[in-house]
Amino acid sequence: MKETKKSNSEQSAELKAEIRSLRERLMGQQQLLRDKALPVIVLVEGWAAAGKGSLINELISEIDPRFYNVVSPMILPEREERYPFLYPYAKAIPENGKIMFYDSGWMEGAVRKYLHREITKNQYKDRVRSVNEFERQLRDGGYILVKLFLHIDRDEQFRRIRELKENYETEWRVTEDDLWQHREYKLFQETYDDFMEKTGKVVAWHVLDGTKKKAAARDALKLLVDAIDQGLENGRYVGKPFKEQFPLLPMQKLSEVDLSPTVEEEAYQQELKRLQKRLGELHNTIYRKKIPVILCYEGWDAAGKGGNIRRLARPLDPRGFDVMPIASPEPHELNRQYLWRFWTRLPRSGHICIFDRTWYGRVMVERLEGYCTEDDWKRAYNEINEFERQLTDWGAVLLKFWIHIDPDTQLARFTDRQNTPEKQWKLTEEDWRNREKWPQYEEAIDEMLQKTSTENAPWFIIESNDKKYARIKTIRILIEALEKACDEQLAKGD
Amino acid sequence: MKETKKSNSEQSAELKAEIRSLRERLMGQQQLLRDKALPVIVLVEGWAAAGKGSLINELISEIDPRFYNVVSPMILPEREERYPFLYPYAKAIPENGKIMFYDSGWMEGAVRKYLHREITKNQYKDRVRSVNEFERQLRDGGYILVKLFLHIDRDEQFRRIRELKENYETEWRVTEDDLWQHREYKLFQETYDDFMEKTGKVVAWHVLDGTKKKAAARDALKLLVDAIDQGLENGRYVGKPFKEQFPLLPMQKLSEVDLSPTVEEEAYQQELKRLQKRLGELHNTIYRKKIPVILCYEGWDAAGKGGNIRRLARPLDPRGFDVMPIASPEPHELNRQYLWRFWTRLPRSGHICIFDRTWYGRVMVERLEGYCTEDDWKRAYNEINEFERQLTDWGAVLLKFWIHIDPDTQLARFTDRQNTPEKQWKLTEEDWRNREKWPQYEEAIDEMLQKTSTENAPWFIIESNDKKYARIKTIRILIEALEKACDEQLAKGD
Repeated sequence: MKETKKSNSEQSAELKAEIRSLRERLMGQQQLLRDKALPVIVLVEGWAAAGKGSLINELISEIDPRFYNVVSPMILPEREERYPFLYPYAKAIPENGKIMFYDSGWMEGAVRKYLHREITKNQYKDRVRSVNEFERQLRDGGYILVKLFLHIDRDEQFRRIRELKENYETEWRVTEDDLWQHREYKLFQETYDDFMEKTGKVVAWHVLDGTKKKAAARDALKLLVDAIDQGLENGRYVGKPFKEQFPLLPMQKLSEVDLSPTVEEEAYQQELKRLQKRLGELHNTIYRKKIPVILCYEGWDAAGKGGNIRRLARPLDPRGFDVMPIASPEPHELNRQYLWRFWTRLPRSGHICIFDRTWYGRVMVERLEGYCTEDDWKRAYNEINEFERQLTDWGAVLLKFWIHIDPDTQLARFTDRQNTPEKQWKLTEEDWRNREKWPQYEEAIDEMLQKTSTENAPWFIIESNDKKYARIKTIRILIEALEKACDEQLAKGD
Repeated sequence: MKETKKSNSEQSAELKAEIRSLRERLMGQQQLLRDKALPVIVLVEGWAAAGKGSLINELISEIDPRFYNVVSPMILPEREERYPFLYPYAKAIPENGKIMFYDSGWMEGAVRKYLHREITKNQYKDRVRSVNEFERQLRDGGYILVKLFLHIDRDEQFRRIRELKENYETEWRVTEDDLWQHREYKLFQETYDDFMEKTGKVVAWHVLDGTKKKAAARDALKLLVDAIDQGLENGRYVGKPFKEQFPLLPMQKLSEVDLSPTVEEEAYQQELKRLQKRLGELHNTIYRKKIPVILCYEGWDAAGKGGNIRRLARPLDPRGFDVMPIASPEPHELNRQYLWRFWTRLPRSGHICIFDRTWYGRVMVERLEGYCTEDDWKRAYNEINEFERQLTDWGAVLLKFWIHIDPDTQLARFTDRQNTPEKQWKLTEEDWRNREKWPQYEEAIDEMLQKTSTENAPWFIIESNDKKYARIKTIRILIEALEKACDEQLAKGD
């Protein structure tokens, strides 16, 4: 190796020059990233006391503050057991044109929890799988990902921890967890290795030598600048759809659904009352057992989603549920991966979140109106199945309701809305336009129901020509699912 | 009273009819609220076990889920001591056209903390004052506020707590805090009364009898429906400016500022290094002592804000600071009170937040471009002083830098940007347009500096014709302020 022949000061001067030139390239790239609307994620993982913070400081020192942010998801208050594993990381993804640095991220979140025995071996495996899914989804959605691991050996870690502890100003930085990691260095090493091996295929890992601070900064800068250059050259990446085998439930085609069921007024009132009472009790139980519940409402315009939601929500304690109406995405939402606006709206465990329209917009309106590419919506079936599995892995009860009516019923309800002053706001030009595309929508919906009804997150077609029948059926399904979830938790010994 | 002569069932039927008719009015109002872009806040306070949750359920039962939300700021994870008192409430304010129900709010946040002795009597008084400011600012910003207190007497509370505790399904709902409130009923009563007396002038309180569930629901509905009707009739309320006596620091006029100071390159490098080292140490200290720091950067285009921020941020641990670039508000931000997008960006205690442009946009660009009414920006001086006092009451170090240059220097920098390809993105058409309005801006800025430089949140004019001089001066001011804050905390015995 040539370098070993050089004097230390020569090496150092050369390194400084390299770093300077890489920083200049990075400065030149920042505006191009914005112009091309490319988002960048730099994940900085590594040993305690390896110098992750200083490394990030070297990387950002010349970037304009408008172009980057740094997050430390391990110390966010949300980083409690009340949210799914990937929540704090998904919440922090950058918008187009920005660089987000993660000072520790999903690797630490999986490995540390596992070694702490807060999650089982199987849960650890699930997390590894979901990390691969998450990274692939980001990559396929146009994100540039750079994954770094800052390495120091056990002796070096010992020296650094001792140094930190000897200094009054820095002593507090050494946590119990860090000391524990140092004692269990070997175990951590094996697990880090295992994690990197299993998550290095979609996006490669780069291990940097933490003992050589300047060289590590140079290497990290080079990896970042090269990755951005590649992104700028090739343009925004759009992932191809792929075939994943999710066990799917058989679903009826919409045209085969019998929409005739009705319920008598008196029976309806009685049954509704009984069901609401039971649902209220169950809400108490799931609140206490901290079971998260996610209900997805989709359906034709004027199918009766709003009234259905109101009846279902009636017996719930307002402290424990939220209705999330989903409209067209706002600019700051359009500027991020499409699932971001749902990640950020997830309920805490023990709470019920009712989505009035959902992420399935991707394979319905966004597909039909051309708001995303064909690859985008074709990929979405799998991405959504993965997303939903991540939620049910977390322990969520996830139910999806397709509120169904036929075109004649819709027309009657549209006409009624048009003729009733208090209801006119409910009817828009868009509703009429959508109605004209009924056949295209029906095709898209059939495909959606076929491809995304999984054991863990099933679709239910709710016959809603008679709205009362629909309400009773929906609440019954919910009650059954909640009872099952409570029993299962009981069986697990909680 | 007529009613006492009626039979119970007659009364009950009449009540039901009233409630039904009020609900219908509310249903009719919801779309009008949206059309007129009026936001509504319903604050529901009251005794533990008084039935706040059920009352809210009665109120929302017929509202379309797209029009309302319920929050319980007491149980949000953010409701920790890491944020200012009003943070969870301010964060939750509704957007235009929506109704937000607070299931307990700032009254409970002030009273309970005080009786728990977690805050002193003086801090309690500060909270009362800030509640009045907060409510006035919301009202003046077009919010319709309805404040309810649900009352039950001590015997009734005893019965209810016993009933809840006897039932397995509800037993967990009775918290230690509730039992403590019951034991200290008298003390609470006095403090609730005191709080309502002191916060009833801007927006009136309405005490409802929690023992009469249906009547309370009727009364609450009526108050809400009437308040909305009044809002719909009068249109969006715009508060008038008023004179509040804030102790203000004397400020130079911009035209009198001597912009000639410079610093030699060698002295600059040496001093910068020394200051950055010191700042790094202090960052450790404030992180450990959990002192929040808010730095506001405002200044002429091309004055050198970005470079100044970069030098200042260089020695900071990226885990402990954030730069918040403030651009034009997004639609969801425009749809809320103008300070909302700053409330939601506040740092946790121990963290440094650097705002690259700030809430002062209100009295500069929004004033000059007509993005708000004259009353709006004239009121803003006081509103901002109040907002900032709330932040420093919390313990924040708040410094405001006006990065100052003269028109010739700006022209030279604009020209340089125009002629340097890597810098061209920094220069926009808007910059040229703003430059033409230099005299109007100067007048607005002078007024802003005069009216908002307070002891607790002072403005500093940073001479930046020589950017290096500016950087040194800014960091020095910050170091001095941090040293003072650390000493003061030390003196208080922390």
